[in-house]
Amino acid sequence: MSHVRLQEVRVFAPATVANVACGFDVLGLAIEQPGDEVVARLSSRPGLRIAAVTGDGGRLPLEPERNTAGVAALALLRRLGRESEGVELEIHKRMPFGSGLGSSAASAVGGAFAVNRLLGEPFPRVGLLPFAVEGEAAADGAWHADNVAPCLLGGITLIRSNVELDVAPVPIPSRLWVTVVHPDIVILTKEAREILPREVPLGTATRQTGNLGGLLCGLHASDYRLIGRSLQDLIAEPHRARLIPAFSAARDAALSAGALGFSISGAGPSVFALCEGEIAARRVAEAVAAAFAAIPLKATPYVSPVNPRGVHVLSER
Amino acid sequence: MSHVRLQEVRVFAPATVANVACGFDVLGLAIEQPGDEVVARLSSRPGLRIAAVTGDGGRLPLEPERNTAGVAALALLRRLGRESEGVELEIHKRMPFGSGLGSSAASAVGGAFAVNRLLGEPFPRVGLLPFAVEGEAAADGAWHADNVAPCLLGGITLIRSNVELDVAPVPIPSRLWVTVVHPDIVILTKEAREILPREVPLGTATRQTGNLGGLLCGLHASDYRLIGRSLQDLIAEPHRARLIPAFSAARDAALSAGALGFSISGAGPSVFALCEGEIAARRVAEAVAAAFAAIPLKATPYVSPVNPRGVHVLSER
Repeated sequence: MSHVRLQEVRVFAPATVANVACGFDVLGLAIEQPGDEVVARLSSRPGLRIAAVTGDGGRLPLEPERNTAGVAALALLRRLGRESEGVELEIHKRMPFGSGLGSSAASAVGGAFAVNRLLGEPFPRVGLLPFAVEGEAAADGAWHADNVAPCLLGGITLIRSNVELDVAPVPIPSRLWVTVVHPDIVILTKEAREILPREVPLGTATRQTGNLGGLLCGLHASDYRLIGRSLQDLIAEPHRARLIPAFSAARDAALSAGALGFSISGAGPSVFALCEGEIAARRVAEAVAAAFAAIPLKATPYVSPVNPRGVHVLSER
Repeated sequence: MSHVRLQEVRVFAPATVANVACGFDVLGLAIEQPGDEVVARLSSRPGLRIAAVTGDGGRLPLEPERNTAGVAALALLRRLGRESEGVELEIHKRMPFGSGLGSSAASAVGGAFAVNRLLGEPFPRVGLLPFAVEGEAAADGAWHADNVAPCLLGGITLIRSNVELDVAPVPIPSRLWVTVVHPDIVILTKEAREILPREVPLGTATRQTGNLGGLLCGLHASDYRLIGRSLQDLIAEPHRARLIPAFSAARDAALSAGALGFSISGAGPSVFALCEGEIAARRVAEAVAAAFAAIPLKATPYVSPVNPRGVHVLSER
């Protein structure tokens, strides 16, 4: 039986909400939109090459060693000893940089996933985690998986250890919806990290841990009220909120419109709410967008259930 | 139909393991033995009186306002406006003070539970939580429910908020066993708290939160390896371990004997291990007791599954 080798693979890598209020650096979830598209195709020219990047306003480097998708793909090829394989990547950015939606993680996951698929899947999906984390680290300098893991694996992901890349899936309650609103300003992850305190009071750390535990118990039990009570960020939000214009107004609007809880997505400026049901989620999106519009600040809403699939193939030949 | 009023209730309130390595102040679990017995009986003399305390070497106060069981029972009676009700308490301490096994929490829970039962259960079980926490706070000056909640409710309990007393049950994997070993020294909770740092590095807080998340996911999924990897305490153990002679040797012995993980029970000096299955749990108990015996230090082992019931009635009439 002959095995037809793939020539080209096009994948979709979704945006992700990291931190999820109380899970600083240890929790993330995938949403349906936006997301990046990455194409990997075989080439007669040896080595990895980035043939095109679109949607980035010319800001992303084309050198594979400096590009998140390139670094992730190269890490995979090197592990296989196939770095001289002829592979072309195209990266189509469909979400803004510095948005707090895991843009660089999505490209890194897309690069590793597309190349792995093109080569006949030498690695299982979860085995791509270190390559994608390495790719993202090339962009933001930090080694953490709270965007990469949910983008790669789908759903809601706990990262027990960012060092060991030890991750665990968390169940998705059937009526859980996510509202994300991206106000049109840029916050660099590096800057948003520098604003954080180096130490936290023991009592604050304890309360944050209690909330993360409450959120996990609430997600396991589909207890929406417990989920809501747990969505409090005592560590990053108090410092980062000031980088986001109208944050308090947006928060009040979300909670008044019925959000279970509301906080910053990743390093911001995007904000997110978890909601029970689609109707609440859409009402919250409107209310939050209106709060930003009042400043005025342009803002783009995204409303979906948690994305259970993560990165996936759009087409291949 | 006549309702026969109870004259006397005798209850058993179990020992508890608080913190459970990575859940400082937010996680606790109940074990089968040891535990305190508390008797509540109607009396013709108005008001709450502590008729007897045994097993305490004469150290516990008999004034209800200064006794953990008394404070808990009084708080309940006052909430009902029945503080002039004639009630007698007997407290039979069956576990050592300052052992890290939730001794004062057990007496407080026993006092509130026995009196509530005697009065025909005006409060549901979970409604006794604030009274019991108030009772324990009378002993150690801190307001936290990580011993009281599992003693009252049984099983493994997450405390989302010690302020709001917001608690959630955590599932008990069917093959999970607990080994507790109590070395015969005393550590006062107050002293063990003062040794802790007031601030923790952000990275440490994050790793601790990841471990707590991993432990909860492991317990929900009966993933014993994930439970084991998560049982690491980066906050209290590094400071408190030095208060426990031969702690490192005991830890090495436990892990070599097959423990999933090992740490300090509450504020110590008791240590605990979680194990998969009874055989492993008994082997670990022997190995840890031998490590203490080698110093030499007398140590008492307790081996059981997690106690799913919590406080319960032994007899009543």
